Amino acid sequence: MHVEIWSVGKENESFIEDGLRYYFKKTNPVNTVELVLLKPAKKIATTDIERMKLQEEELILKRLSSQHYLVLLDERGKELNSIQWSQQFQQLMNNGTKNLVLLIGGAYGVTDAIKKRASQVWSLSNLVFPHQLVRLIVAEQVYRAFSILNNSPYHHS
Amino acid sequence: MHVEIWSVGKENESFIEDGLRYYFKKTNPVNTVELVLLKPAKKIATTDIERMKLQEEELILKRLSSQHYLVLLDERGKELNSIQWSQQFQQLMNNGTKNLVLLIGGAYGVTDAIKKRASQVWSLSNLVFPHQLVRLIVAEQVYRAFSILNNSPYHHS
Repeated sequence: MHVEIWSVGKENESFIEDGLRYYFKKTNPVNTVELVLLKPAKKIATTDIERMKLQEEELILKRLSSQHYLVLLDERGKELNSIQWSQQFQQLMNNGTKNLVLLIGGAYGVTDAIKKRASQVWSLSNLVFPHQLVRLIVAEQVYRAFSILNNSPYHHS
Repeated sequence: MHVEIWSVGKENESFIEDGLRYYFKKTNPVNTVELVLLKPAKKIATTDIERMKLQEEELILKRLSSQHYLVLLDERGKELNSIQWSQQFQQLMNNGTKNLVLLIGGAYGVTDAIKKRASQVWSLSNLVFPHQLVRLIVAEQVYRAFSILNNSPYHHS
Protein backbone atom coordinates (compact mmCIF):
# COMPACT_ATOMS: atom_id res chain seq x y z
CA MET A 1 0.00 0.00 0.00
CA HIS A 2 1.31 3.40 -0.98
CA VAL A 3 0.69 6.22 1.49
CA GLU A 4 0.39 9.87 0.55
CA ILE A 5 0.29 12.65 3.11
CA TRP A 6 -1.64 15.52 1.57
CA SER A 7 -1.27 18.97 2.96
CA VAL A 8 -2.46 22.31 1.67
CA GLY A 9 -0.09 25.17 2.17
CA LYS A 10 3.43 26.38 2.22
CA GLU A 11 6.73 24.64 1.59
CA ASN A 12 8.36 23.13 4.64
CA GLU A 13 10.77 24.81 6.97
CA SER A 14 14.10 23.07 6.44
CA PHE A 15 13.98 21.15 9.75
CA ILE A 16 10.57 19.74 8.79
CA GLU A 17 11.86 18.83 5.34
CA ASP A 18 14.88 17.08 6.90
CA GLY A 19 12.65 15.26 9.36
CA LEU A 20 10.31 14.07 6.62
CA ARG A 21 13.26 12.78 4.61
CA TYR A 22 14.49 10.99 7.74
CA TYR A 23 11.22 9.09 8.25
CA PHE A 24 10.50 8.54 4.55
CA LYS A 25 13.94 7.00 4.14
CA LYS A 26 13.22 4.60 7.00
CA THR A 27 9.82 3.65 5.57
CA ASN A 28 10.49 3.48 1.86
CA PRO A 29 12.60 0.34 1.57
CA VAL A 30 9.52 -1.66 2.56
CA ASN A 31 6.50 0.54 1.99
CA THR A 32 6.26 3.81 0.15
CA VAL A 33 5.18 7.12 1.55
CA GLU A 34 5.42 10.67 0.28
CA LEU A 35 4.24 14.18 1.02
CA VAL A 36 1.97 15.78 -1.55
CA LEU A 37 1.90 19.52 -1.13
CA LEU A 38 -1.22 21.17 -2.53
CA LYS A 39 -0.42 24.74 -3.34
CA PRO A 40 -3.22 27.25 -3.88
CA ALA A 41 -2.88 29.12 -7.16
CA LYS A 42 -3.72 32.47 -5.64
CA LYS A 43 -3.45 33.85 -2.18
CA ILE A 44 -6.70 34.58 -0.40
CA ALA A 45 -6.82 36.80 2.66
CA THR A 46 -7.06 34.66 5.78
CA THR A 47 -10.00 36.79 6.82
CA ASP A 48 -12.06 35.23 4.04
CA ILE A 49 -12.10 31.79 5.60
CA GLU A 50 -14.97 30.33 3.58
CA ARG A 51 -13.35 31.23 0.26
CA MET A 52 -10.08 29.76 1.48
CA LYS A 53 -11.76 26.50 2.40
CA LEU A 54 -13.49 26.33 -0.98
CA GLN A 55 -10.21 26.88 -2.76
CA GLU A 56 -8.68 24.06 -0.72
CA GLU A 57 -11.66 21.83 -1.50
CA GLU A 58 -11.14 22.41 -5.21
CA LEU A 59 -7.45 21.51 -4.99
CA ILE A 60 -8.19 18.33 -3.06
CA LEU A 61 -11.10 17.12 -5.19
CA LYS A 62 -9.21 17.79 -8.42
CA ARG A 63 -6.44 15.45 -7.32
CA LEU A 64 -8.59 12.73 -5.75
CA SER A 65 -9.52 9.72 -7.82
CA SER A 66 -11.54 6.60 -7.10
CA GLN A 67 -8.18 4.86 -6.46
CA HIS A 68 -7.68 6.85 -3.28
CA TYR A 69 -8.88 5.81 0.14
CA LEU A 70 -9.26 9.12 1.94
CA VAL A 71 -8.64 9.56 5.65
CA LEU A 72 -9.10 13.06 6.98
CA LEU A 73 -6.88 14.04 9.91
CA ASP A 74 -8.83 16.46 12.02
CA GLU A 75 -8.92 17.17 15.73
CA ARG A 76 -12.67 16.49 15.72
CA GLY A 77 -12.06 12.92 14.52
CA LYS A 78 -11.59 9.65 16.33
CA GLU A 79 -8.40 9.47 18.34
CA LEU A 80 -6.68 6.19 17.52
CA ASN A 81 -3.52 4.95 19.20
CA SER A 82 -0.47 3.75 17.27
CA ILE A 83 -1.51 0.11 17.40
CA GLN A 84 -4.89 1.04 15.98
CA TRP A 85 -3.19 2.93 13.15
CA SER A 86 -1.34 -0.26 12.26
CA GLN A 87 -4.53 -2.29 12.49
CA GLN A 88 -6.27 0.14 10.17
CA PHE A 89 -3.37 -0.12 7.73
CA GLN A 90 -3.61 -3.91 7.87
CA GLN A 91 -7.34 -3.86 7.29
CA LEU A 92 -7.03 -1.50 4.33
CA MET A 93 -4.37 -3.73 2.77
CA ASN A 94 -6.55 -6.79 3.36
CA ASN A 95 -9.33 -4.96 1.53
CA GLY A 96 -6.99 -4.36 -1.39
CA THR A 97 -6.43 -0.65 -0.86
CA LYS A 98 -3.52 0.48 -3.04
CA ASN A 99 -3.43 4.18 -2.22
CA LEU A 100 -4.07 5.62 1.19
CA VAL A 101 -4.36 9.39 1.42
CA LEU A 102 -3.90 10.99 4.83
CA LEU A 103 -5.25 14.49 4.39
CA ILE A 104 -4.18 17.15 6.87
CA GLY A 105 -7.15 19.45 7.24
CA GLY A 106 -6.64 23.20 6.88
CA ALA A 107 -6.27 25.47 9.89
CA TYR A 108 -9.97 26.27 9.76
CA GLY A 109 -11.15 22.76 8.96
CA VAL A 110 -12.35 21.44 5.62
CA THR A 111 -15.60 21.85 3.72
CA ASP A 112 -18.56 19.50 4.09
CA ALA A 113 -17.86 18.09 0.64
CA ILE A 114 -14.45 16.88 1.80
CA LYS A 115 -15.85 15.51 5.03
CA LYS A 116 -18.40 13.52 3.03
CA ARG A 117 -15.75 12.22 0.66
CA ALA A 118 -13.53 11.01 3.53
CA SER A 119 -13.95 7.36 4.50
CA GLN A 120 -12.67 8.03 8.01
CA VAL A 121 -11.67 10.94 10.23
CA TRP A 122 -8.79 10.45 12.67
CA SER A 123 -7.53 12.82 15.32
CA LEU A 124 -3.85 12.90 16.31
CA SER A 125 -4.26 14.59 19.66
CA ASN A 126 -6.31 17.07 21.67
CA LEU A 127 -3.48 19.47 21.10
CA VAL A 128 -3.39 21.83 18.15
CA PHE A 129 -0.18 21.53 16.15
CA PRO A 130 1.02 23.68 13.25
CA HIS A 131 0.53 22.10 9.82
CA GLN A 132 4.15 21.54 9.18
CA LEU A 133 4.68 19.73 12.45
CA VAL A 134 1.62 17.60 11.67
CA ARG A 135 3.29 16.52 8.43
CA LEU A 136 6.27 15.30 10.46
CA ILE A 137 4.14 13.60 13.12
CA VAL A 138 2.15 11.78 10.45
CA ALA A 139 5.30 10.68 8.63
CA GLU A 140 6.57 9.17 11.87
CA GLN A 141 3.27 7.42 12.61
CA VAL A 142 3.19 5.93 9.12
CA TYR A 143 6.67 4.53 9.70
CA ARG A 144 5.59 3.29 13.12
CA ALA A 145 2.42 1.64 11.80
CA PHE A 146 4.37 -0.30 9.17
CA SER A 147 7.05 -1.16 11.75
CA ILE A 148 4.40 -2.66 14.00
CA LEU A 149 3.02 -4.69 11.09
CA ASN A 150 6.52 -5.84 10.16
CA ASN A 151 7.37 -6.74 13.78
CA SER A 152 10.32 -4.38 13.75
CA PRO A 153 11.62 -3.45 17.22
CA TYR A 154 10.96 0.27 16.60
CA HIS A 155 7.70 0.29 18.53
CA HIS A 156 7.46 -0.88 22.13
CA SER A 157 4.30 0.03 23.94
CA MET B 1 8.18 31.56 34.41
CA HIS B 2 11.11 29.62 33.04
CA VAL B 3 10.30 26.32 31.35
CA GLU B 4 12.70 23.38 31.13
CA ILE B 5 12.00 20.34 28.99
CA TRP B 6 13.82 17.41 30.61
CA SER B 7 14.56 14.36 28.59
CA VAL B 8 16.69 11.35 29.35
CA GLY B 9 18.66 9.98 26.45
CA LYS B 10 20.60 10.67 23.35
CA GLU B 11 21.57 13.88 21.62
CA ASN B 12 19.12 15.12 19.04
CA GLU B 13 19.09 14.26 15.38
CA SER B 14 19.98 17.46 13.58
CA PHE B 15 16.45 18.10 12.30
CA ILE B 16 15.15 17.89 15.88
CA GLU B 17 17.90 20.22 17.08
CA ASP B 18 17.07 22.70 14.32
CA GLY B 19 13.36 22.47 15.15
CA LEU B 20 13.98 23.07 18.84
CA ARG B 21 16.08 26.12 18.03
CA TYR B 22 13.28 27.35 15.77
CA TYR B 23 10.66 27.21 18.55
CA PHE B 24 12.97 28.32 21.36
CA LYS B 25 13.93 31.38 19.33
CA LYS B 26 10.25 32.26 18.91
CA THR B 27 9.55 31.80 22.62
CA ASN B 28 12.62 33.25 24.26
CA PRO B 29 12.17 36.95 23.61
CA VAL B 30 9.19 36.89 25.99
CA ASN B 31 9.48 33.74 28.07
CA THR B 32 12.40 31.37 28.43
CA VAL B 33 12.49 27.72 27.57
CA GLU B 34 15.30 25.22 27.15
CA LEU B 35 15.96 21.54 26.70
CA VAL B 36 17.81 19.78 29.51
CA LEU B 37 19.28 16.53 28.31
CA LEU B 38 19.91 14.01 31.08
CA LYS B 39 22.60 11.64 29.96
CA PRO B 40 23.11 8.34 31.77
CA ALA B 41 26.71 7.82 32.87
CA LYS B 42 26.80 4.23 31.77
CA LYS B 43 24.87 2.30 29.21
CA ILE B 44 22.54 -0.36 30.53
CA ALA B 45 21.18 -3.08 28.28
CA THR B 46 17.62 -2.27 27.26
CA THR B 47 16.67 -5.74 28.38
CA ASP B 48 17.24 -4.69 31.98
CA ILE B 49 14.35 -2.27 32.05
CA GLU B 50 14.06 -1.89 35.82
CA ARG B 51 17.73 -0.99 36.23
CA MET B 52 17.39 1.48 33.37
CA LYS B 53 14.42 3.14 35.03
CA LEU B 54 16.26 3.36 38.35
CA GLN B 55 19.23 4.97 36.66
CA GLU B 56 16.90 7.51 35.07
CA GLU B 57 15.23 8.13 38.44
CA GLU B 58 18.60 8.91 40.00
CA LEU B 59 19.48 11.37 37.23
CA ILE B 60 16.15 13.13 37.58
CA LEU B 61 16.04 13.32 41.37
CA LYS B 62 19.63 14.56 41.55
CA ARG B 63 18.76 17.54 39.42
CA LEU B 64 15.37 18.32 40.92
CA SER B 65 15.12 20.95 43.62
CA SER B 66 12.24 22.38 45.63
CA GLN B 67 12.25 25.27 43.14
CA HIS B 68 10.96 23.01 40.39
CA TYR B 69 7.31 22.36 39.66
CA LEU B 70 7.38 18.95 38.03
CA VAL B 71 4.94 17.90 35.32
CA LEU B 72 5.43 14.40 33.97
CA LEU B 73 4.52 13.86 30.32
CA ASP B 74 3.27 10.34 29.97
CA GLU B 75 0.70 8.71 27.75
CA ARG B 76 -1.14 7.46 30.85
CA GLY B 77 -1.69 11.05 32.02
CA LYS B 78 -4.50 13.51 31.52
CA GLU B 79 -4.88 14.67 27.95
CA LEU B 80 -5.14 18.44 27.96
CA ASN B 81 -5.77 20.56 24.91
CA SER B 82 -3.64 23.56 23.94
CA ILE B 83 -5.92 26.06 25.65
CA GLN B 84 -5.71 24.03 28.84
CA TRP B 85 -1.91 24.03 28.63
CA SER B 86 -2.02 27.83 28.55
CA GLN B 87 -4.48 27.92 31.45
CA GLN B 88 -2.18 25.67 33.46
CA PHE B 89 0.75 27.94 32.66
CA GLN B 90 -1.29 30.93 33.78
CA GLN B 91 -2.31 29.26 37.01
CA LEU B 92 1.26 28.24 37.81
CA MET B 93 2.45 31.79 37.22
CA ASN B 94 -0.35 33.12 39.41
CA ASN B 95 0.84 30.75 42.13
CA GLY B 96 4.34 32.16 41.81
CA THR B 97 5.95 29.19 40.05
CA LYS B 98 9.34 30.27 38.73
CA ASN B 99 10.56 27.01 37.20
CA LEU B 100 8.34 24.58 35.37
CA VAL B 101 9.87 21.24 34.46
CA LEU B 102 8.18 19.23 31.73
CA LEU B 103 9.67 15.77 32.07
CA ILE B 104 9.48 13.41 29.13
CA GLY B 105 9.09 9.95 30.61
CA GLY B 106 11.36 7.16 29.39
CA ALA B 107 10.27 4.63 26.78
CA TYR B 108 9.29 2.23 29.54
CA GLY B 109 7.73 4.80 31.83
CA VAL B 110 9.21 6.21 35.03
CA THR B 111 9.59 4.80 38.53
CA ASP B 112 6.96 5.22 41.23
CA ALA B 113 9.25 7.66 43.04
CA ILE B 114 9.15 10.00 40.05
CA LYS B 115 5.42 9.61 39.67
CA LYS B 116 4.97 10.58 43.32
CA ARG B 117 7.25 13.56 42.97
CA ALA B 118 5.35 14.89 39.93
CA SER B 119 2.65 17.43 40.70
CA GLN B 120 0.76 16.57 37.53
CA VAL B 121 0.85 14.04 34.69
CA TRP B 122 -0.13 15.19 31.22
CA SER B 123 -0.54 13.13 28.08
CA LEU B 124 0.19 14.56 24.64
CA SER B 125 -1.75 12.06 22.60
CA ASN B 126 -2.95 8.47 22.40
CA LEU B 127 -0.19 7.99 19.86
CA VAL B 128 3.28 6.87 20.85
CA PHE B 129 6.00 9.20 19.57
CA PRO B 130 9.77 8.78 19.71
CA HIS B 131 11.46 10.79 22.46
CA GLN B 132 13.15 13.17 20.17
CA LEU B 133 9.93 14.05 18.38
CA VAL B 134 8.28 14.55 21.78
CA ARG B 135 10.94 17.15 22.60
CA LEU B 136 9.98 19.06 19.47
CA ILE B 137 6.23 18.71 20.06
CA VAL B 138 6.62 19.98 23.63
CA ALA B 139 8.77 22.91 22.50
CA GLU B 140 6.02 23.91 20.09
CA GLN B 141 3.27 23.57 22.71
CA VAL B 142 5.23 25.72 25.15
CA TYR B 143 5.50 28.41 22.48
CA ARG B 144 1.80 27.99 21.72
CA ALA B 145 0.76 28.20 25.38
CA PHE B 146 2.65 31.46 25.88
CA SER B 147 1.31 32.78 22.55
CA ILE B 148 -2.23 32.14 23.74
CA LEU B 149 -1.53 33.94 27.01
CA ASN B 150 0.07 36.84 25.13
CA ASN B 151 -2.84 37.03 22.67
CA SER B 152 -0.51 36.49 19.75
CA PRO B 153 -2.23 35.43 16.51
CA TYR B 154 -0.22 32.17 16.38
CA HIS B 155 -3.02 30.06 17.80
CA HIS B 156 -6.47 29.95 16.26
CA SER B 157 -8.72 27.19 17.47
